[in-house]
Amino acid sequence: MRVIKYDDIPEKKVETQGAEGVGIRVLISEEDGAPNFIMRRFSVRPGGQTPYHSHSWEHEVFVLSGKGEARQGSSVHELESGSVVLVVPEEEHNFRNTGTEPLVFLCLIPIV
Amino acid sequence: MRVIKYDDIPEKKVETQGAEGVGIRVLISEEDGAPNFIMRRFSVRPGGQTPYHSHSWEHEVFVLSGKGEARQGSSVHELESGSVVLVVPEEEHNFRNTGTEPLVFLCLIPIV
Repeated sequence: MRVIKYDDIPEKKVETQGAEGVGIRVLISEEDGAPNFIMRRFSVRPGGQTPYHSHSWEHEVFVLSGKGEARQGSSVHELESGSVVLVVPEEEHNFRNTGTEPLVFLCLIPIV
Repeated sequence: MRVIKYDDIPEKKVETQGAEGVGIRVLISEEDGAPNFIMRRFSVRPGGQTPYHSHSWEHEVFVLSGKGEARQGSSVHELESGSVVLVVPEEEHNFRNTGTEPLVFLCLIPIV
């Protein structure tokens, strides 16, 4: 059993093209012995967003705090604390902070 | 893309032997199209606990609120908002609420 606090892990800037004001902490990964999927915590500054893109793996998201939107094509879904998002493989998506505080969410992905 | 609020899902009582005052909401499952792992939200009442047991799959846990302990053999780890727990396959474990408010956490498991 491994127990940490999320802020034991330093936040790194996401450098992927299209990411604006996004930080990531990888909380649980294969390096810790996770066999199937990994847990990351993202923080998006007000006005910031993740890239609008798609990929072959899913996202399972839980919003911890802040206000935002999840976009998929012309569909836009409002996000707030307690929102739950499933992005299935190959589905285009992004997450945008529409509020005045950081938009913070967990996003889990499979080990591929 | 599927977006819900966690409380769109009714909480059910966990009936597993050894569970005391534990409620579960399955937020994302294979029925929603999740291909690899599922997201559950647990709420444990003050004084309550999950079963002390082991199984062949891992847990990836993020504590949302409350105070508690994660036990593994003689090791006890304190839990609070922002705690992150990895329980690897076959490791004995339980989660206990030691506070005065519900202990609430996400716990993700693989689809087996």
